[in-house]
Amino acid sequence: MSADEAVRPPALRAGDQVAVVSPSGPARPELVTAGVALLRSWGLRAVPAPHALDRDGYLAGTDADRIADLNAAFADPAVRGIVVTRGGYGVQRIVDRLDLAAVRDDPKPVAGFSDLTALQLALWRGARLAGVHGPGAAWRPERTGPAAAESLRNALMSVDPVVVKRDPADGTAGVSRPGIATGPLLGGNLTMLASTLGTRDFPDLTGAVLLVEDVDEPPYKVDRMLTQLRRAGVLRGLAGVAVGQFVRCADRWPTSVADVLADRLGDLGVPVLGGLPIGHGQDQLSVPVGVPAALDVAAGTLTVDPAVR
Amino acid sequence: MSADEAVRPPALRAGDQVAVVSPSGPARPELVTAGVALLRSWGLRAVPAPHALDRDGYLAGTDADRIADLNAAFADPAVRGIVVTRGGYGVQRIVDRLDLAAVRDDPKPVAGFSDLTALQLALWRGARLAGVHGPGAAWRPERTGPAAAESLRNALMSVDPVVVKRDPADGTAGVSRPGIATGPLLGGNLTMLASTLGTRDFPDLTGAVLLVEDVDEPPYKVDRMLTQLRRAGVLRGLAGVAVGQFVRCADRWPTSVADVLADRLGDLGVPVLGGLPIGHGQDQLSVPVGVPAALDVAAGTLTVDPAVR
Repeated sequence: MSADEAVRPPALRAGDQVAVVSPSGPARPELVTAGVALLRSWGLRAVPAPHALDRDGYLAGTDADRIADLNAAFADPAVRGIVVTRGGYGVQRIVDRLDLAAVRDDPKPVAGFSDLTALQLALWRGARLAGVHGPGAAWRPERTGPAAAESLRNALMSVDPVVVKRDPADGTAGVSRPGIATGPLLGGNLTMLASTLGTRDFPDLTGAVLLVEDVDEPPYKVDRMLTQLRRAGVLRGLAGVAVGQFVRCADRWPTSVADVLADRLGDLGVPVLGGLPIGHGQDQLSVPVGVPAALDVAAGTLTVDPAVR
Repeated sequence: MSADEAVRPPALRAGDQVAVVSPSGPARPELVTAGVALLRSWGLRAVPAPHALDRDGYLAGTDADRIADLNAAFADPAVRGIVVTRGGYGVQRIVDRLDLAAVRDDPKPVAGFSDLTALQLALWRGARLAGVHGPGAAWRPERTGPAAAESLRNALMSVDPVVVKRDPADGTAGVSRPGIATGPLLGGNLTMLASTLGTRDFPDLTGAVLLVEDVDEPPYKVDRMLTQLRRAGVLRGLAGVAVGQFVRCADRWPTSVADVLADRLGDLGVPVLGGLPIGHGQDQLSVPVGVPAALDVAAGTLTVDPAVR
C-alpha cells in the first residue's frame, strides 16, 4: 500500500454545508445541539440528517435509515463534509451497503472515531479516502475543551500539519520502543480493528503507522485483541505504532493495560510511542487518518502531514 | 469439510491417566482439588500438570510453562486424556506453539470450553481432533450438579450418543428457525470464534452445525461478533445453528440477547435451535465437538452421534 494512493478531500471552508449523521448508536439531542452550534460557530452550515436523532435500542434507528442518511450525505453535492454524532455500536451492520461509487466521485472528509473506525476502514478500502479521527458532533464540553475543539476545527478546515505530543501523565506514556517511523497513519479503535479481521475491510498495514486506542476494555481483552492481530499476521509489516488513550481499561488484575501494550507491541521490532492524547480520554486531539505521518519516539511526537514521506 | 476426516479419540477407561492442565487463566486450588476428586471418583488417575496452579496476573503462569504443560500432556503416552481446569483468557497466546505432530500421533480427548474453544479450533485445524465441550476440572458443584458431572463423565468415558434437549426456561429458548440439520458440531464460545477470525484456525463451517454460547457480553457485543462472522462470510454454508446459554448477556438497553440472536441468525436460511443447556449457565451439559450431529428444531433436540450422517 502506498500513501500516494490516498485521497485527501479538500478542507472545509466557512459557508460549507456539513451533514451530521448517526450511523452507530443513538445520540442525546442536547449534545447534538451543542455540537451543531460548535460547527456553526466555525461558519459551517451543520445540518442534522433526517434520522440523526433516531433511537432503536442500542442503534440510532433502523439499519435502512442509518445507511440512507450516510449514502445521501455522500451523494448530495451540496454536502461538503460529514461529522458523525457519536460511536457506540452499529456501523458494521450497514457498512457493506455504502455507496462507494458516490464516495469516489465526490470525496468528502468524514470525522468520527471509536465505532466509526469501522467506517473509516471501509472508506479506506473502497475509496482510499483519508478521514479525521476525532470527536463526534454529540459534543461533551466537559470532556472536550477548547483545545479539542480547536484541534477538530483544524483537522476539518485546514490541511496544516498536525503535531501530537506525548502526554507524560497518560497511563500509556511509558509504552515506548525507540526509533523513527514514517508511513500512512491507519487504524483507530482497537476493538474495531479486531472486529474487522476476516472482512474485506481490514487494511494492508504494510509500511503503515498503526494508531490504537480503546475504552472500557480490561487488560486481558486488550491482550486478546492484540494477540488476534498478531496471530492473523497483519502486524508483520508495520512501520510503527502510535498508542493513544486507553480509558477505563483496568480491571481487578494486577496487570495494567500499559504492561499488556508493552508486552504485545514491544517485540514487533518497530518504534512504539505511547501516551498520545487521542481517543476516549480528556481533551482528545483530532488527527487525519490515511495521511502520511511520522512517529518520533525520542521527541515524543506524532506528526501527520501530507509533506511527510 | 467432511466429518469423515475427524479423529475421535478413544473413550477414557477406568485406570487411565488424565492430565489436568491450565493453558488459560489461573484456577483456584480448592476447585481443582474438587475436580481432581471427581475425576478420580470415576476411576481416572487425574494428575495436575506441573504448572496447573500457577498464577501470573490473569494468566495461569508464563506462556512458556503453559504450553510446556500442554505439549507434555500430548507427548506423554501414559496420558490418555486432558481436562483443562478453567477458561478465562490465555490459550490464544500459546496455541500456535502446539506440538500438532504429537497430537496427530496419539489423539487424546481434550475437555474444556469458553477460552478453550480457541484450543479446540486449533486442534481441529491441525489434527482434525474431536474434543469435548464441557466444564473444566476447576469444579464448582454449585454451578455444575450431578447431571452436569454425569454428562461430562459420559462424554469422556463413552462414545454413546448425546442428546441435549432445549430448556424452555432458558433465555434463548425462543430463538428458533424450523428444520432439521446434520453436520459436524463445531464452535463453542462466540467470543473465541470471533477472536479466531483472520487466523489460520478459523474452521471451514460449510455443512457444519455451529454451536454458540457466551457469558458477560451485552447484546450489542453479541450483535457485533455475529455481524463480524456474517461480514467475513463464514456463516454462508452452515447447516444449522445450535444456540447454547448466553449468561449475564444483558445490559441497560431494552434489546435482549435473544432479540439479537434472532435478528443475526434468523435470516441465514438454516435451522436454529435456542435454549440448549450448554455453556456458562447452571448445569451445563457436555457435548463432543467435531463429531456428527443432528439438530431437530421441532423435537427441540441436538443429538451428537458418530452414527448420524
